[in-house]
Amino acid sequence: MEKLKNRIQNQGRIIGTEIVNVDIFLNHQIDVQLFNDIGQEFKRRFENETITKILTIESSGIGLAAIASQYFGFVPVVFARKVESKLLDNEVYLTEVHSFTKNKTSQIRVSKRYITKEDRVLIIDDFLANGNAVLGLCDIINQASATLCGVGIVIEKSFQPGRKKLLDQGVRLESLARINSISDGIINFED
Amino acid sequence: MEKLKNRIQNQGRIIGTEIVNVDIFLNHQIDVQLFNDIGQEFKRRFENETITKILTIESSGIGLAAIASQYFGFVPVVFARKVESKLLDNEVYLTEVHSFTKNKTSQIRVSKRYITKEDRVLIIDDFLANGNAVLGLCDIINQASATLCGVGIVIEKSFQPGRKKLLDQGVRLESLARINSISDGIINFED
Repeated sequence: MEKLKNRIQNQGRIIGTEIVNVDIFLNHQIDVQLFNDIGQEFKRRFENETITKILTIESSGIGLAAIASQYFGFVPVVFARKVESKLLDNEVYLTEVHSFTKNKTSQIRVSKRYITKEDRVLIIDDFLANGNAVLGLCDIINQASATLCGVGIVIEKSFQPGRKKLLDQGVRLESLARINSISDGIINFED
Repeated sequence: MEKLKNRIQNQGRIIGTEIVNVDIFLNHQIDVQLFNDIGQEFKRRFENETITKILTIESSGIGLAAIASQYFGFVPVVFARKVESKLLDNEVYLTEVHSFTKNKTSQIRVSKRYITKEDRVLIIDDFLANGNAVLGLCDIINQASATLCGVGIVIEKSFQPGRKKLLDQGVRLESLARINSISDGIINFED
């Protein structure tokens, strides 16, 4: 998705050789017009799939998933919760996710009410790096005996193991911008 | 907003006399069509205001703010972060927020890049109870010398002090459903 790559190239702030900060449009400030373009592109790529639910994880995935839903017939969005909340009932699917960015392992949970075995689920998230968050969501879909239709990612860091882990499990992965490397202040995209 | 009150009445799960759980459409599973109705209603109520930015707080406000932005000319959405993240730069507005639901005080932060003194800001959030989250966002707007145009809330628990705190500060508050009390399994709305 050329428009997205241009935004990353022009507005991303590179930190070292592994991080590009895009909080100007993706995960702190949100460009809702761009999110609509992203949602439309996900629809184009998963055109042939019947999706009944979009699953993501708080926080940065929520805006993407909500906007994308509009292109998938307004299917419900469910976001996995990272922390224990008094307001969430006890009947939940639980799994553990390790975040390398934050250097901690946390539980994520989804109420059993909102993912059922009839669901055909599209996972959407902002970044794919080590893949642990997405694998956690896959595990929840599996626990629910629902069908995973695919994973839509905005920015994939292809030099980290997430992509390979998902492809090894036979998951259909669509990443809108794939970064092969970051060197000398230049972001190199997969063509 | 009648449609919203009906959803709360029909789908909310009442817990005691102070909590109604609406995670079926608002803050765990998201009904994106309803979110569009909510966004449109916020636009109707703040029609006369020039808004340049929508500010919310992770996580439940993000989907609401992103969808609402579409009715405010796609103005950028900024969401305050609750936790320290390596990816957020050091130049932030910081404030403290106590959550009664989670019984803990945490810092929230917004990058100084994304709220400036030229901004005319609409705050959007899912719930107003004690008001601490919204007051924290007001404090950030104040630190930025930006203009607070108003606060849009989906569900206000009018029997808790948040409403009064905001009105006492002269804040323009628009709550789409105001709950006066919860008793004997009945939710009583302000007319």
